[in-house]
This record gives sequence, C-alpha cells and structure tokens, in this order.
Amino acid sequence: MKRQFTFNNHQIFQMRNKIMLKPTNVIYRIFLLTYFMETLKSKLKESLNCQSINYLLNHNQLKASLFLLFILMSILVTAQKVVYRDLTEFVDPFIGTQGGGNTFPGATLPFGMVKLGPDCSPPGSNMGYLPMGHSVKGFSHLHVSGAGGGMKYGNVLVAPVVGDIDLDDFNSERTFEKASPGYYGTSLKRYGVYAEFTVSHSVGMHKYKFPESKNANILIDAGFFLSEIPSSFESQFLVGSEIEIVNDTLIEGYTRVRGGWNMGEAYTVYFSAVFNAPASKYGIWIDKTLYPGKTTSVDNGKKCGAFFRYNTRKGQEIIIKVGISFKSIGKARENIKDEIPGWNFDLVRENAKNSWNKVLNSIQLDDATAEEMTIFYTALYHALLQPSDRTNENPKWLSKEPYYDDFYAIWDTFRATHPLITILLPSRQRDIVRAMIDIYKFEGYMPDARSGNFTARTQGGSNSDMIIADAYVKGLTGIDFETAYKGMLKNAEIPPGGNEQDKGRGGLPEYNNLGYVPFEKSHDKETIYYPPIYRLFERAGTRTLEYAANDYAIATVAKGLGKVDDYNKYRNRAKNWSNLWYQKKSHGAKGFILPRRKDGTWIDDYNLFLSGSWGNFFYESNSWEYSLYVPHDMKALIDSCGGKDSFIARLDTFFINDYYGVSNEPGFLTPCLYIYAGRPDKTNERVRAIISKYYKATPEGIPGNDDSGSMSAWYIFNAIGFYPNAGQDVYLITSPHFIKTTFNLENGKIFLITAQNLSEKNIYITSAQLNGKPLNQAWFRHEDIESGGHLDFVMGDKPTDWGTRNPPPSMSDN
Amino acid sequence: MKRQFTFNNHQIFQMRNKIMLKPTNVIYRIFLLTYFMETLKSKLKESLNCQSINYLLNHNQLKASLFLLFILMSILVTAQKVVYRDLTEFVDPFIGTQGGGNTFPGATLPFGMVKLGPDCSPPGSNMGYLPMGHSVKGFSHLHVSGAGGGMKYGNVLVAPVVGDIDLDDFNSERTFEKASPGYYGTSLKRYGVYAEFTVSHSVGMHKYKFPESKNANILIDAGFFLSEIPSSFESQFLVGSEIEIVNDTLIEGYTRVRGGWNMGEAYTVYFSAVFNAPASKYGIWIDKTLYPGKTTSVDNGKKCGAFFRYNTRKGQEIIIKVGISFKSIGKARENIKDEIPGWNFDLVRENAKNSWNKVLNSIQLDDATAEEMTIFYTALYHALLQPSDRTNENPKWLSKEPYYDDFYAIWDTFRATHPLITILLPSRQRDIVRAMIDIYKFEGYMPDARSGNFTARTQGGSNSDMIIADAYVKGLTGIDFETAYKGMLKNAEIPPGGNEQDKGRGGLPEYNNLGYVPFEKSHDKETIYYPPIYRLFERAGTRTLEYAANDYAIATVAKGLGKVDDYNKYRNRAKNWSNLWYQKKSHGAKGFILPRRKDGTWIDDYNLFLSGSWGNFFYESNSWEYSLYVPHDMKALIDSCGGKDSFIARLDTFFINDYYGVSNEPGFLTPCLYIYAGRPDKTNERVRAIISKYYKATPEGIPGNDDSGSMSAWYIFNAIGFYPNAGQDVYLITSPHFIKTTFNLENGKIFLITAQNLSEKNIYITSAQLNGKPLNQAWFRHEDIESGGHLDFVMGDKPTDWGTRNPPPSMSDN
Repeated sequence: MKRQFTFNNHQIFQMRNKIMLKPTNVIYRIFLLTYFMETLKSKLKESLNCQSINYLLNHNQLKASLFLLFILMSILVTAQKVVYRDLTEFVDPFIGTQGGGNTFPGATLPFGMVKLGPDCSPPGSNMGYLPMGHSVKGFSHLHVSGAGGGMKYGNVLVAPVVGDIDLDDFNSERTFEKASPGYYGTSLKRYGVYAEFTVSHSVGMHKYKFPESKNANILIDAGFFLSEIPSSFESQFLVGSEIEIVNDTLIEGYTRVRGGWNMGEAYTVYFSAVFNAPASKYGIWIDKTLYPGKTTSVDNGKKCGAFFRYNTRKGQEIIIKVGISFKSIGKARENIKDEIPGWNFDLVRENAKNSWNKVLNSIQLDDATAEEMTIFYTALYHALLQPSDRTNENPKWLSKEPYYDDFYAIWDTFRATHPLITILLPSRQRDIVRAMIDIYKFEGYMPDARSGNFTARTQGGSNSDMIIADAYVKGLTGIDFETAYKGMLKNAEIPPGGNEQDKGRGGLPEYNNLGYVPFEKSHDKETIYYPPIYRLFERAGTRTLEYAANDYAIATVAKGLGKVDDYNKYRNRAKNWSNLWYQKKSHGAKGFILPRRKDGTWIDDYNLFLSGSWGNFFYESNSWEYSLYVPHDMKALIDSCGGKDSFIARLDTFFINDYYGVSNEPGFLTPCLYIYAGRPDKTNERVRAIISKYYKATPEGIPGNDDSGSMSAWYIFNAIGFYPNAGQDVYLITSPHFIKTTFNLENGKIFLITAQNLSEKNIYITSAQLNGKPLNQAWFRHEDIESGGHLDFVMGDKPTDWGTRNPPPSMSDN
Repeated sequence: MKRQFTFNNHQIFQMRNKIMLKPTNVIYRIFLLTYFMETLKSKLKESLNCQSINYLLNHNQLKASLFLLFILMSILVTAQKVVYRDLTEFVDPFIGTQGGGNTFPGATLPFGMVKLGPDCSPPGSNMGYLPMGHSVKGFSHLHVSGAGGGMKYGNVLVAPVVGDIDLDDFNSERTFEKASPGYYGTSLKRYGVYAEFTVSHSVGMHKYKFPESKNANILIDAGFFLSEIPSSFESQFLVGSEIEIVNDTLIEGYTRVRGGWNMGEAYTVYFSAVFNAPASKYGIWIDKTLYPGKTTSVDNGKKCGAFFRYNTRKGQEIIIKVGISFKSIGKARENIKDEIPGWNFDLVRENAKNSWNKVLNSIQLDDATAEEMTIFYTALYHALLQPSDRTNENPKWLSKEPYYDDFYAIWDTFRATHPLITILLPSRQRDIVRAMIDIYKFEGYMPDARSGNFTARTQGGSNSDMIIADAYVKGLTGIDFETAYKGMLKNAEIPPGGNEQDKGRGGLPEYNNLGYVPFEKSHDKETIYYPPIYRLFERAGTRTLEYAANDYAIATVAKGLGKVDDYNKYRNRAKNWSNLWYQKKSHGAKGFILPRRKDGTWIDDYNLFLSGSWGNFFYESNSWEYSLYVPHDMKALIDSCGGKDSFIARLDTFFINDYYGVSNEPGFLTPCLYIYAGRPDKTNERVRAIISKYYKATPEGIPGNDDSGSMSAWYIFNAIGFYPNAGQDVYLITSPHFIKTTFNLENGKIFLITAQNLSEKNIYITSAQLNGKPLNQAWFRHEDIESGGHLDFVMGDKPTDWGTRNPPPSMSDN
C-alpha cells in the first residue's frame, strides 16, 4: 500500500502530450520517420513487461529535467506505444460466475464472436457454466455473459468421452479448472481427460489430453443448445441440425435454433471442425441413436451429432480447430484458415492474451492492491466482452458497415458500458454505432436488444437514442448522424406494433398524445393473442420516464444538427416524466411517479415499493427508484421534490433504508444525484459503500447479473472516480479510489487522474485541478479526457464545500 | 359443337353417389376389400386414357338400367377412381406470358416448390421469361407466376455454353420452344444446344443436348437472381453466394438474396447439382473473373459460380439433377435422392404430367371446344401453381404443420383462387390454412402476402381473415379455428407497427377509434424515415372498405365459435364502410366512398376515377370501383345507392362506360352484384362480355397480371357458371358456359352442372333444378357441391324472371 505517496507533475504531463501530438512539431515528424522501423520491432516489445514511463513517473525523486529527457528519448524509441503490462494476470474470469452475476468464464477475445466454454448440468445456467461440483456436459462455442432470463446460444458442443458413448449421460465432474483471458482448462474426472481451450475471433481451439485408451472419443453435438427444463416461452427451440463427417479429420455441419430470452427468430451456427489426427473410427447419431460408420445426418428436424474415435497413447493430445460462421460452412472453414492456420495451441493462446492486454492497458492503475487490481481488471474484461463483433458474418444483408450482435441489452449497457468503450476504444464504439445505424437502415429500427441476428426485446425506452446522443455529444467521428437521427425519429414517431416488445417504443401513440403511457390492467389480453404475448400498456411507468429521457437525447442531436423545430419539440416532450408525477407522500418524501389512466385519473394507492417485470408498471424497479430517473433534468426533478434539502433528505431515506437496488440498472445513476443537489460528498459515501459491500474478487463478487458488463462498467467508472450521465457531455465526479489512474487513449494521448493524500480515511475531495487550473465543480466534459490532461485531486478526511456549487447542467437551466 | 345436345339424368347421379359413398352400404364394403388390390394396378391405369364413366354419361341412349349395372361393376373394379383424361394437352403454359399476364411458363408441379424456367434478357421480367425474340441467359429454379412489382427469385441459374465462356454475355436466342405441364424445352441458337427441363417437387432436372465440341460447358450461377436494372426499392439484392465443386459430377452451394416485391428479409436457396457425366475440366468464377481449376468460392459477399467442361459427341446429352432446399445443401442433396433417384428424364416428365392430370381432372368438361378447353385448363393450371408447398423446408421453425410460401398475395387470391382450391382440393386448402395459422403462431400474424419466408406486403385489408372465414363456413375439417380466430383478432386489434406494410392492418388505431382510416397527405413523411418507407394513412379508402369486410369475416367465425359478444362487436364494425360514404353525385350515381380527414371533414372534390397505388387513397382501383365493395352487406349498399333500380342503373353506367377494370381484383365480384339487385341476367351478360373480350388461348390471353392464378380462377368460376363471395357460404350463379361440367370431388363424390339448350344464343337461365328440386334463386351453398349432386339449368335466349327474387344473404338481412 503506497497510498500516502503523493506528487504533482501535471505540468510535465502537459508538456509530454504537447510534444507527442502536435502535428507540426519537429519531434513529431521525427517520430513519423522512425515509426516504420519501430513497427517492425513492436510485436516483440509488446510481450515484454519492460520498465514503463508510468513507473518512472511514480518516483518524483527524479528531477523534472531528467524526466523530460527520458520522454524525448522514449518518443524517438517507442513513439506513442503504450508500454503494456501483463494485466491479464489480474483478470479472474470466475468472478461473477456465482451469486447471479452469470458471467461467462470461458475463452474469448474482446468483443469476440466465439465464446468457448463449458456447458454444465443440470441445465439452467445462462452462461452454460456452473461451478465445480456440477458436472460438465461439454464445451460449446457461443455464449453471452451476464445475461438473465431465458438462455441463448450454447451451440456446437464438443465433448471428450473415454469408453462407450452414453448419449443419455456423457457428463463428467471436474477435479480442477482454471481460466484466464482467452483460455479455459479443466480436468474431467470421469474420463481422465485434461481439456483446454483457447480462441481466435471466430475459431475455437480445443486440446484434449487423453489417457491410454482404445476407445477415446470426441463428440460433436450439433443438436445441443442451452435451454432450461422444462422449457418456457423464453426457451430456445431446435429448428434443425445437420452434420457430415467429410473425412477422418473433418466434421462439418450446423445447428439452427430459435427463441431464447429475446424470443428471436431462427439463427444458424455453421461449423467446420478439423482434427490434428485421423480418427480410427467414426459415426453419427440422430436423436439418441448411434450409427457407427454412417457419415451424414441431413436436416430433418432432428438433433444430430458425430463422434471420432481414437486409440490414444497416454497423454496423447487431440487438438481440434472449430471454425464458426453465421453465413455458411464454407465461411466457417475459411475462418480457420484465416485465423488459425497452424496447430500451435500455445501461440493462439498467447495471441489471445495479447489481444486482451492491448485493451486492458487502456487504463493503468498504480498503487492499487492485487485485490483491487483483480476486481478492477476483471471488471474491465467483463465490460469488453459484448456486443459481439460479427463484421462479415451478417447473414441478413450485405453492407460495408461493421456488424455487431448481442446487444444484450442496450437498456443495460447504454448507461456505463458504452460510455466506457467510448473513452477507451472510440473506434470500436464508432463501429458499434455504425452497426446500429446499419441495422436501422436495413430493418427499420435500431436495436434496443438484439441477439442471434434478431432485434428484441425492449425492456423500457428506446435507449439506442441514448447511445446516439452519447456518441454525438462526445464527438465520435465517422458516424452518419443524419441517418442515425432518422433512426431516432423512427423510435419516437412510428409505433413498433405487434407485441411491442421487439423494438421502438411500446404504447407510443398514447405517449405522444397524452404525454404519458397510460396504465391499464391487461390480464384479459394476455391469453387472447397467441405468442408472442401482448400486454397493452405494460411497463407504462418505465416507458414514460425513459421515453422522456430518450426524447431529450433526440433534442440534443437535433440541436447539434441544426434542426431547431425538432429540438424544441423533443425538448418539450422530454418534460413528459412530470405527467406521471403525483404529489403523494411517503416516508418524508413527496412526489412520486404513479400509474395514470387514459382519462387522466390516478392509481393513487399504488405500492411505491412494488418491483415489477414485463407485465407491470415498472420494469425491474419500483416507484421509489424510478421517481428519481430524470437524468436530463435533475434541476426540475429536485424542484418537484421540494428543493435541494428535501431532495437530499429523500436520497438519504432511499439509501439508508436500502430502498436502493444496486443490482439493477435503473439505479445506476442514483448515487450521483446528490451532486446535482450540491452534495458530492454524499455521492462519494454512497458509492464507496456500494463498492465495498458488493464488489469482490470472488465468484460472487458482482451484485446481480453483470448484464454484458454493465455492473462491471459501473464499478470501473466509480472506482476511477467519475461516472457518465449517458447521452450528455457530463462526467460526474464521484471521487477516486486510486491514487493514480492513467488512461492510454486511442488517439495516443494520456489522461491522468491522481488523488493526493488518498487513504482509507481521506476519501473526500478537498480540491481539484484540471490541467493545473482549479476545478471547483463536481463534473467535467468529455473533451477534458479526449484532449489528454491531468485531473488532480487533493483528498481529505472530511467533506468540504468542494463541488457544492455550479451543479452539472440540466435541461431546465436554459 | 354439340351444344344442342341435351339430357336429364340427375336421378342417376343421385343414385350413384348414394351407392358409392354410404359407409354402411354392402357395396361400399366390397369396395374397401377390393381397394388394396386396386391400388396395385392404379399407377398403370392412371396413365391410360380409357373410356370413362363420364363419356358414357354423355350418351343417354344407354338405358338407365344398363348404366346402373356399369356403375356397380365400376365400383368393384375401379372403386372411386376418377377416370383421368390427359388434360395436360389442353394446357398451354405460354398463355398469359405476354400482355402483362406474367405467367410462368416453365416446368413445375401443382403447388411445386421448384419452378424451373428460362430467365431472359433484357432483365425485367417478373417470371424470368420473355417471349421468343428475346435471348435466354439461363434456367433458374425459383419463380412466381403472375406477379407484378419488383421481381422475386430466379435463383441458381444453369446455362449451357459452347465455346469460350464470356461471363458478360452468355445469352442465346431461341429458335424453338415448347412447354407443357412439368416440361419446358428450347433450342438455343448461339450454342446449338437443345435444352429440356422437367421437375419433381423440389428438384429440377435439366437435359442439354450438345453439338460435338471440345469446349461444351455447363455454368451454374450461384450469384444470379432476378432484378431489374437499375435497381429500385423493390429490387432483390445479393446477400451472399457460395459454391463448391465437390467432384467432377457434383456442384453444391447456395445463393442468399433479400428484397424483391415484398421487400423481404434474406432467404437462402441451397442447391446440390449432380451431373450424369464427369466433367473433363472445371472451375469457378468470382464476380466476373474465371478461375479454372479452382473448386471453391466461400461466401464473402461476392457473386460466384462454377462451370463444368465436356468433350461432347454430337447429340450427347448432359443431364443434371438440381436439388433445391431452403434448409441446407444436405437437404437439397437428399431431395434428389428422395424424388429423382435415377436418370430417366422421360419418367420424371411423365410423373409430372400425371401429377397435373390428377388435379386437372378435378373438373371435367364435356362438349367444350378445343379452344375453350385450352383456355379453361390453362386457367386451372395457373390457379394451382401457388402458394408453394414448402412443407419440411421451413428454415424458421420446426413444426408438424404444413408450410406454404409465396402467398403472392392473399389480397389477390382470397377472392377466387382459394375458393377454387377449397372445392377441388379441400385437403390442400386445409393444409394451406394450417400453414397460415402456424405462421401466426410463430411470427405473430397470419400473412397477407409472403414470399421468401417473409411476410409482407399488405395491399389493403387483412384478407387472411377472408380465407379463415371461407374455410370455416365451408366446413373444412382438420383446422384449429380457435387459434385461427386468435389470429383474426390479432389482425383486428393489434397494430402491426413499423412501416405498416408488412402484416396486420395499417392505420388500425384510427380505424378502430374513428370507424375509418383517415386521409392525410403524407409526402413530408416519405423522406424522413429511411427504408422501409412509411406513409401515414396511405390507402385509407382501400383499407377502410376491406377492414369492414374483414370484420364481417371475424364476426362470421365468432358466431360459429359461439363468441356472441365478439360477433356483435365485429358485425358492428363491419358497417364501417358507411363512414366514408358521402352523398356525392356523379354520372347519375349518388353516394361514393370519399377521403375523410381525422376531424370528420371530407375531401369532397376527390377525383372518383383516380386510380392509385401504395401511397394513395385507393390501391389499384378508384372510387367508382371501391364504392361497390361491400361484399358482406350488399343490401345496405344497394339501399345507400338509392335502391335496386338506382343500383342497377349505376352498375350499367359502370360497365357500359368501361369504368370497370377487369384486370384488377377489387372488381372481381362486381359483375355479380346485379344478382343482389335481382338481375342475374345482367350479371350473365357482363361476365360473358368480359370473358369473350379478355380471355383467349393466346400469350396475351389474360387481362393483366395473373396474380398467382387469380385472373385464371375468376375465369374458371365464371365459365362454369358460378362465383364465390369469399368468406361467405354463397356461390352466385352467373350462368354456365358449358353444357356439362363434372366436379370430381376429393371426397369421391361428383357434382354435376348441366346446361340444357345452351347455345351461343341461349345464354339466359330460364329455370334450374338442384338435385331434382326447383332452384329459383341465383345462388346456392357449398354443401350443395360438397355433398355431390346435380345442378341442372335450362337455358333460353331471353332474360326471364328466374333468380330475380330471393337475393343472396346480406348482413343487414337480420
């Protein structure tokens, strides 16, 4: 623990950034000349954990002049290259795999298409995985991380079996397992097999170390997919599967499945599995009957698979490369050739590790404990698993735009995950946004959730609007915002129809006419209309509040694009939250979001603590929580609550009595709301309490479903010390947990956050400087990060009046 | 011409039906015993055009007793078998291929999946085909018949090329072509090749007779599909294609395309093409570059193909079997094995011919001229081409229900095509209806139009309602009408959303609230929302009128299912047409359907002759026509028009001045409307005038797009002498064109229509008997056909008062 160690070197950082990046600078030009030579050496350097600039920065006994010399030299030698540390050692993929986090612990790359990991018994796990003690059925290639509800994916399962194949039960207990970014390994007790997995972007590599056996088998199950038993309306269902043993080293086929949480239409996963050794025998199965010697099962609506049999020496390794494609078997085959032409498992694993190190090093922490590093980098790892990059794998249309899938769901990820990607990997976020716009162009709506190439389901608002506005206000380049804006208007103006759970905004005509989604009991409707179930005006509270926030997002982009009439229109609609604001009192607080009928009357006996789901007034939250969700106009909300003091008291009641649900996204911003009322110190306290109580370096260390890294991204921001109000150019300062955080930005610049005097006691910000100038407000803007710079805090042990004035902007300000 | 020949033998028919079909009858039991022996011989018999019962029936010089003896014998020998004539000789697939009929002249089976025919240059033909004089590019496997708008299909094109392959132009002129059901053949001038084609249900069989050549090629173009140049918003677009030369007799791959008239999502056509002779050389192409020797092009968004080269002897025949599947290459391969295991082209062709004869013999005409027979059986052939039976080929879900595609569109086909199938092939119609219900269950809406596994676009109402009601009132068995009814309610209650052109009812909230779809100019909306284009309240007139008729269909089924409240509700909504009825006068007629704004005001200067399309008040029609479209309540409409006399005068004005558009479906029922006003003679005159003017045994012999056989089905009904009011249990008697028409019903019964004294002059019905009892009304019910029986007319040369009283039922009757 070096928390007492302090320094102040922001001027040096300023200089460094200037030297490095001013295009007219002579040194910059020298850098360009040397860059070509440098790139030749860079591959080697990346894997070395050499002494870094940052390390030197931590030793202020070096004189500034010496440091400057070093900087100049390092520009000539290493150019803009970030010196990577091996941060994968701090990633524990098992964090969040228990206690409902539902994180995926298998092998994958950042935003990787293939997510290869164990599928366990009994079935019912969203990520396929269950902890040791449960048996493993096999290892399949597609998963989502952090999801809840009906399971999705789990396609193309591979399993080693020693001895006779029992298709009713080829599960095995594990005696050991380990995982790291891009790698998973486990010992299978029943078979004495050590199974290891690594991946490239769209290929899974399997290595099975067998005991001596004349009956060592590898099964490829084309009919398997994740699904609970018995099935529900959110289950996956077989559409078809096909398999062909092409020769004694090659098995190909596909699995076609529909359903899952988003109740999507059929998706097809094609595979080509090439083995490093010829099978001595082989055969297939259809349903649960084995057909030794038979090589083909054509898709007739039955589950099929194939097995390869080997005479194995003790310790013989059978390696399989399983190419995956959403377009064709041929493409799956080609993906292997393109990504893993050879058979060197360790090299593929090393490449995977390097891919992770590249992105993990976007943020470097100094002086954090190993435990903190583990929580932090695992969270960062989790935040970069999804959406899945499926560029060139879109089976629905041909386009030059990027293609992403597994927006699972934007309702979760717009708040923290995408803002985090925007800071760390803006070109990635640009591509994700472009993919969303392309989906709008070809399918008519941007996705709110999407998986298996199918857009559905919308939990609340049309929060793609928030992502577009966020990208716009943060100046992401390379995005066709005019088309994106059309997509936003589509959300806001054109009802999605049907079950209203797929896309756009449910209850839209009423929202646009009345200014709110009316409440209506709808049990009688549920049974009339065959699946998908349709419930009229369900989630009226969530929808109204989120639509208002979404409308502000539209107004924001409209303003930027010079569409003045639209700006005024949607800015006005953004006030619609207040149409459900009712002067009800509860526990000292006054004013709550209540259900309201079409005729304007209220359900004023509504239970403010009632948390709901799809068919209810609020989705995954209650009135206490949602009555605080006006992210675009906190000034108006505070006024409605009776002014700052009442608002602060209300928040206190909310947190002290544990009305707050940390595990769900509607409350992500809530701890920050004190800042709008001039009490950043209370935000700080709440955030620290949440983090210390709920975020651990243990399998249960994530509070609730990680939701594609949403919980993790929330943690990362708050641990670093600021949190985005998504869709707005505002970062709210929650106070840092680390003495020093370095952002190695994609544009080559560095944004540094330091916290002088930080200790377990000194948690309050007493003063702050941004690039040497006093920062007396508890928020800053994206440009402050993007331009590089230094945000320096001085911490103390008591709340001060720092940040209490000049609150962050609200719509009502002007 | 034997038109003067008369007889009266309905008692004999009655007896015959009784003997044949009463299950307790001794003879019927004997029949059952002999049935097994019989089935062994039946295949042989089917191909023989032996003397038929019907032939004997035409010779009433035989005594009734002798005839009865024959019947008894024939029961023992041939059981219920209809004695098939070879009616394919009267089918001329070229009828309708010119003059806008857009009929498909290639090889296919009834409701066949594969429709194999020529694709011609210049591109732009909906059915691929263009008449001699235009060149042929090749022969592809999927087409629709009678369609307009953007082209669909044209997948997996095969072309012979002698000499060097020029990918920019391998078209050839034809010197000769011929076609018959299940067969197409043509001589290609450029290459000296005679190309012939036949089919099974999902396999195309090609036979190319080559000249002597060392460079005889067969091209398989996986990147081809029908599309006009330049492309439009209704064009097809490539998503991907893939091809693999598996060995020197096998090429496999797929083509994936989106768009077309229904602007559908991507569909994939997999193929497996097996050749009867090994290629001496082969290769592929990608885009337009040939790669000799290369065997694979993986789907990377480029158009690809493959060629096989042969050294051909003069007259050498290269035969190819091209299996098609919508699920997989494996399934395409299996379809070949299942359907065409051998290489006997003539046998496959004979089987195809037999399949056609089976269905064509559902109606047998006597004493029609060859020209009449040709018009008639070609029309029947055209009416049985679609929808395509894709059972076991659904790539979207797994189900035990039948699956049909290419409802193209129900707006066209509900009126005559499906009622015709219901009479002739009720088990087929049952399967089609079950497929529609299954689509509702899995996708949320029954289709109004569907192609390429994608439901879209709705031209007017939700006319799936009409098909369900029609099936219900006509007592089709094996249908889950409770679920079908839910699908109808979904249409009527749940807005489809999005562009509102895909499914359900556009403008539904307004229709349900105001009682009509309001008119609104919407040009400003067109450009805001990126494709698909959305036009608010487009087709308000068509929609309102058709929704009212659809609502009556719902009321009909509700009543049958005992849902009294629903019955009253939808019966009431069925009056909504009158909400657009405005007392405007024109050419002596008073009262027209006019556009009306949301506020209740009218566009009273609307041009009553203005015919529109997607973006207009009326779709493919005008106010003069649509103001007559109240099929469920003609009594109310006649009253609104000022009573019977005014109504008759109005119809006269309409027909005499050619305001009537024969080529479009909204007017299909119009000639029959006189019957509701007590003037069947005028219906008769109008129908005869239309048929004689527009239906010919020539390539231009169909008035306008045949629309999946809609024009043809209209003709068949009216030529036989009655026409259905779809969705109601009513056949309106228009008067027969043939002396004798025999319906060989699927249940083994026979329904006979005879017209005594019919001649060119004697076209008026003077009296009628149904099963020996006087029929004094110009309509009858489905049971009258289904039970078997005899409808006997006596014709005269002047209108009489026959059928002038007791009009067909109207909603307002009770």
